[in-house]
Amino acid sequence: MEQRELPKKYKKDFPHSYALGPFPTFELLSHRPKAVRAVYFREDFREREKLLSRCEKLGVPCLLWPRALERIAQKEACYAAGEFLKYPGALQPGAPHAALVEPSDMGNLGTIMRTLLGFGVRNLALIGGGADQWHPKVVRASMGACFQLETERFDDFPAYLQAHGQGREIFPFMLDGGRVLTPESCPQSPCYTLVFGNEAAGLPPVYQTYGQSLFIPQSSAVDSLNLAVSVAIGTFLFTQKNPAGMEK
Amino acid sequence: MEQRELPKKYKKDFPHSYALGPFPTFELLSHRPKAVRAVYFREDFREREKLLSRCEKLGVPCLLWPRALERIAQKEACYAAGEFLKYPGALQPGAPHAALVEPSDMGNLGTIMRTLLGFGVRNLALIGGGADQWHPKVVRASMGACFQLETERFDDFPAYLQAHGQGREIFPFMLDGGRVLTPESCPQSPCYTLVFGNEAAGLPPVYQTYGQSLFIPQSSAVDSLNLAVSVAIGTFLFTQKNPAGMEK
Repeated sequence: MEQRELPKKYKKDFPHSYALGPFPTFELLSHRPKAVRAVYFREDFREREKLLSRCEKLGVPCLLWPRALERIAQKEACYAAGEFLKYPGALQPGAPHAALVEPSDMGNLGTIMRTLLGFGVRNLALIGGGADQWHPKVVRASMGACFQLETERFDDFPAYLQAHGQGREIFPFMLDGGRVLTPESCPQSPCYTLVFGNEAAGLPPVYQTYGQSLFIPQSSAVDSLNLAVSVAIGTFLFTQKNPAGMEK
Repeated sequence: MEQRELPKKYKKDFPHSYALGPFPTFELLSHRPKAVRAVYFREDFREREKLLSRCEKLGVPCLLWPRALERIAQKEACYAAGEFLKYPGALQPGAPHAALVEPSDMGNLGTIMRTLLGFGVRNLALIGGGADQWHPKVVRASMGACFQLETERFDDFPAYLQAHGQGREIFPFMLDGGRVLTPESCPQSPCYTLVFGNEAAGLPPVYQTYGQSLFIPQSSAVDSLNLAVSVAIGTFLFTQKNPAGMEK
């Protein structure tokens, strides 16, 4: 360990990232074991035996190294963390997808990943720029749900459609959506993609042309709903109405 | 202005708090005009004319004072802010309520306020300790929705019941809830309170005795849903099923 280099605070251009905190670290070990490069923990971490035995089985270095944790933690106390290589994602054809167009808030992105997994939608398309899916803040906000999703980035929506549009219905969520989405009006669809815009701007008008746009009924007392809340309502209703697409 | 004291960074024991950012500031001026003590803005704030005219009508001091903004802002650039006196809240009898038991995350609390307002539930009970409803981070995360809600704090749930329990059905949301909540199974109720536990711990078992406990169906792949997401799903379904309780 003496010769091991102290890990560096995360930057976007790194080939690796970090799962900070015990829960995300165990999720990483369970669902992406081949991507793990090392695990770090503090002396006062209660589940060290469990962590050491998991790592030993996987042949992953598991190091008591508080300085490493201080270096990579995002300002919070961190008892354990996993360092992992970024890996490619590939959306599954035939499965329900969610698509986020340039989401900007890392906390929102993580919460959305956790929500999608919670409702059994395991495929997430990221369209255009926006928050870095690998950032430790996203991983942590997702509570490690990111490791159970397939997440793929596309330059723009036409590129996504070219790869995955065939035989798939597109439902853009818009404040001027053409159909009010309620439990009763929620479409039945064998294969669908729910599309959500950026927190501040929503979806540009061209998205009206990609499919049946939807509006979540809301009081005029608010400007809009929070993005993660919109994704939650949309995904919940669609997976309830189309249970075949939901994995347990 | 020279004699005015520079405002101080928010502390919980202050009699006042701050709405940071233009949108929350305008919401404050619109919905709680009597509570406003002063408004501050920066030289490069684009809507200064609108702000000045609103403040003039209300007789509120509106000051070009960048140093004040730097002092009270929570690490983010802030173009305008409102300083307001904390005011008492009083839940409306007969209206739908949401109750949060010791919510700990300020961002979650603000998002929940915005979501409740978005679905027309304008009464929020805070039970026990937990996040400070007046903290500028909560106000900001709520996008000023806090100013359109009645929010009242109770020492414990029995104290809430004593004040508001009569003629009201209580629905605690629990991971071991007795009824799976779907659009079809969602209860019809003339007067209800939706109760949600703390982010980490959920609701203690005693809440099973307060009413029909509910469980939002979710994949076993996640530990639980995010609190704000659970509140959103529950509130959306109840207000859809019981539209009389929803204000536009």
